[in-house]
Amino acid sequence: MTADSDRHAVKMAKKKVARDKIMATKTDQKGLIIVHTGKGKGKSSAAFGMIFRCIAHQMPCAVVQFIKGGMSTGERDLILANFTDLCEFHTMGEGFTWETQDRDRDIEMAQAAWEKAKDLIRDESRRMVLLDEINIALRYDYLDVNEVVQFLKDEKPPMTHVVLTGRNAKDELIEAADLVTEMELIKHPFRSGIKAQIGVEF
Amino acid sequence: MTADSDRHAVKMAKKKVARDKIMATKTDQKGLIIVHTGKGKGKSSAAFGMIFRCIAHQMPCAVVQFIKGGMSTGERDLILANFTDLCEFHTMGEGFTWETQDRDRDIEMAQAAWEKAKDLIRDESRRMVLLDEINIALRYDYLDVNEVVQFLKDEKPPMTHVVLTGRNAKDELIEAADLVTEMELIKHPFRSGIKAQIGVEF
Repeated sequence: MTADSDRHAVKMAKKKVARDKIMATKTDQKGLIIVHTGKGKGKSSAAFGMIFRCIAHQMPCAVVQFIKGGMSTGERDLILANFTDLCEFHTMGEGFTWETQDRDRDIEMAQAAWEKAKDLIRDESRRMVLLDEINIALRYDYLDVNEVVQFLKDEKPPMTHVVLTGRNAKDELIEAADLVTEMELIKHPFRSGIKAQIGVEF
Repeated sequence: MTADSDRHAVKMAKKKVARDKIMATKTDQKGLIIVHTGKGKGKSSAAFGMIFRCIAHQMPCAVVQFIKGGMSTGERDLILANFTDLCEFHTMGEGFTWETQDRDRDIEMAQAAWEKAKDLIRDESRRMVLLDEINIALRYDYLDVNEVVQFLKDEKPPMTHVVLTGRNAKDELIEAADLVTEMELIKHPFRSGIKAQIGVEF
């Protein structure tokens, strides 16, 4: 080993001790309220990534898509074709709200999606429920954020993870959540005239 | 319809016109250099979500895990069990660097992973290649960022997407990328003594 490698080994050994010490204090498990928000990409993809982790570990789970019926089609197709035994999948929305232009109908769809979501969450055999793009429905007040937060506090089984995605997460939801990630947009190819592409955006 | 709904319909119709106009200018397709960085969660999950999108669309793809041999096991197991016909999978790293404490060996592993990555990217039948946690290898200078950037510019086939994940993405890489998302940590349950959990972290 070179002197450089030696210094590295000492530094990394210290880092390991420190990290092991910290991780030893993390002993609890509980079902988390997880929020993915922000203007960047990856909010839904990362949530679907967790759903695929659950599927890989044979943990029953479910997805309710609140708004973008037309997006995330890749994930939906993959789940419907292969994993319906582990993952129940419901697409309740009808595409983005500026496509439908009918507030009454949007509210009706959002409420129906939320009723389905509550049923899925109440069944404690399910370990993760993804409420995809629910933040859009909350933002436009198609759903009452206080009702959603209260339900999660009162009725979510202790070991169930609930993942809520979409831009502009409301403060009440962030307050109630255990794990919040903001996907921040640093650079986007739409700005240089590149369109949404298969495999990347849907 | 109520007056409220009427106003909503007008507003959404305007939004749709504006959006359609913007989207009509986005006509190009090209293989993107995509970077997921930041301290928040979801960098690898979102990347694996894109890999699953590719699989769903029958697009050949590949994953090289540079560092965390022990993490993302859920996604790896799922791919290895179901989708090896579409997605080639290589785990080259041996876990986090503070676990191995051997810089020479880490460099050797990172270089081997990079050689494999180059082979996978050069084959243009592959539509997406995920270089998971390569940013860690770049940060510790196990790999030369200029060499990586130069290769992507010179040899990446035009329609291939390459996704590079990990904290502390180097400026040179961000400069070369088409799409950069920073996952920002807003709230994390480790801070309240909750440990890494199956389905969420791995």
